[in-house]
Amino acid sequence: MSNWVRAHTNIALIKYWGKKDEDLIIPMNNSLSLTLDAFYTDTRVTFDDALTADELYLDDMLQDFTALKKVKTVLDLVREKAGIRSKAKVESYNHVPTAAGLASSASGLAALAGAASLAAGLELSSVELSRLARRGSGSASRSIYGGFAEWQKGSSDETSFAVPVDDADWDIGMLFIVVSDKKKDVSSREGMSRTVRTSPFYQGWLDSLDEDLNAMKQAIKKQDIDKVGVIAEQNALKMHATTLGAKPPFTYWSPDSLKAMDSVRALREQGYSVYFTMDAGPNVKLICRQSQLEEIRTHLLSDFTGSQLIAARPGPALHVVTGPEL
Amino acid sequence: MSNWVRAHTNIALIKYWGKKDEDLIIPMNNSLSLTLDAFYTDTRVTFDDALTADELYLDDMLQDFTALKKVKTVLDLVREKAGIRSKAKVESYNHVPTAAGLASSASGLAALAGAASLAAGLELSSVELSRLARRGSGSASRSIYGGFAEWQKGSSDETSFAVPVDDADWDIGMLFIVVSDKKKDVSSREGMSRTVRTSPFYQGWLDSLDEDLNAMKQAIKKQDIDKVGVIAEQNALKMHATTLGAKPPFTYWSPDSLKAMDSVRALREQGYSVYFTMDAGPNVKLICRQSQLEEIRTHLLSDFTGSQLIAARPGPALHVVTGPEL
Repeated sequence: MSNWVRAHTNIALIKYWGKKDEDLIIPMNNSLSLTLDAFYTDTRVTFDDALTADELYLDDMLQDFTALKKVKTVLDLVREKAGIRSKAKVESYNHVPTAAGLASSASGLAALAGAASLAAGLELSSVELSRLARRGSGSASRSIYGGFAEWQKGSSDETSFAVPVDDADWDIGMLFIVVSDKKKDVSSREGMSRTVRTSPFYQGWLDSLDEDLNAMKQAIKKQDIDKVGVIAEQNALKMHATTLGAKPPFTYWSPDSLKAMDSVRALREQGYSVYFTMDAGPNVKLICRQSQLEEIRTHLLSDFTGSQLIAARPGPALHVVTGPEL
Repeated sequence: MSNWVRAHTNIALIKYWGKKDEDLIIPMNNSLSLTLDAFYTDTRVTFDDALTADELYLDDMLQDFTALKKVKTVLDLVREKAGIRSKAKVESYNHVPTAAGLASSASGLAALAGAASLAAGLELSSVELSRLARRGSGSASRSIYGGFAEWQKGSSDETSFAVPVDDADWDIGMLFIVVSDKKKDVSSREGMSRTVRTSPFYQGWLDSLDEDLNAMKQAIKKQDIDKVGVIAEQNALKMHATTLGAKPPFTYWSPDSLKAMDSVRALREQGYSVYFTMDAGPNVKLICRQSQLEEIRTHLLSDFTGSQLIAARPGPALHVVTGPEL
């Protein structure tokens, strides 16, 4: 049996923005995401008494302590649960198109949670896996599931985890407009922390989320692409608005992000059901019908290059990968 | 004696954003502006029994009813105060560089208030002129004064007017980056109204203003260009954040607005005291030392054309213009 576990990345349509507990990674609000097929991480963990320290290989390169920190958190939790004292070798491959500049922490930490618990012989439920992945990276809690997932904020380590919402087996897809592969000036961790502490808009953001979340779940149930898109776009704009009120203020938007938003609005005026969302970086992610992905991509080629435009479809849950898939 | 009155436009450093009373134009918050020399309006009013309707000539062109609406409000108030029943001919010249795409309602309605009361033989105090101009256009209340002025929101027609703050006779100037001369999709009137009604961020905006206003007045008193700039930039970003939460959301930013903001940040990293503000449109206005206006303008010529860059210095109060000036 293979020890390799694959997890796909997810993009939040209702954003996770702000921690209530920075150590346990308990969020200030529920979030809701779509897991995607286009980007994923394959990870294998080997516990080995011969090792004197944990080792992380990312795409065959040994990583330094900074990259290892979140990984160690997850490994320590697994060791504690399984009564293992050995150090671990972690091998991980990120399948993200070159220069996509897209954070892989969601798929990476979810794959690690799966691979480490598999190697330790733990048989964890999805909820337990989600809690474990959460400790590595908040958004990883949602990458345990395929399709749409909701991270329920809870109020403690035990009660904060993601649950599946819908398998997304209908006509929905996403298109990534990669405008920059540069590392962002303000990390999402620092960005959300500064916003929670200093932005006069943070409370307004929180207060508006119940309505967004309920409307989004209704829209998903009805498979209503326009409602899903409208709510996601409004939610993303609100998240980004909160950063403009922080002290000092900051934004993840670049001129090209606005150009991409303008392109989306122009496509809508042509009758397409297409909407955008953005995360803690300048890249823009479009929500549209899966059946129109190629058509919309073709239209966008007048504003962006082919390598900037990556189509994605709903992706599967975390799973063990067998020979042919590897 | 000349009947021509000149008023200069002003740019708010603490923004006016939202009305408490849409008819009387009572604002939700105090605002603070700098009157500028570069853009102004010259206006003459003639009450004439021979006229059967009010007439407005803008740059020698007779205007239709839409443009006349705000003008009629001011004329009616003056007629009422002076006991005049005649209709009026209003002649107005806007001195705004071609294609600047900068709203002239502040200078236009202030000049009208001055010219109409002059023609009617009313001797109004600055406060009375400010109240009168306010009824035409909120921001016009501040163009009665030179230098820095504060529009105190008050709570009624009688108590809502601007007062002088500082004559700005120190090393401060502004540089306009004109990125578009297109008419905006969402007027400032509609934009602020929609924001007040629907944005979850509007209360946070209001709650943060006392601090901004007090800090700004302190900074002006100390002639501290960096503090003035930092507060103005933060205040503008907050105002623009509120629009992203409106339903439906909207923004006045274009890709070139973000490009201009990036240019400003780059100049700051080179050591310049330069900051930006924006109003209900995509153009970006820089706050800097008057003594560095030309140097900064030269730097910006690598990103923008010469005709996009207009330097402005603090401007004078409303005044009657005599022959040589006309």
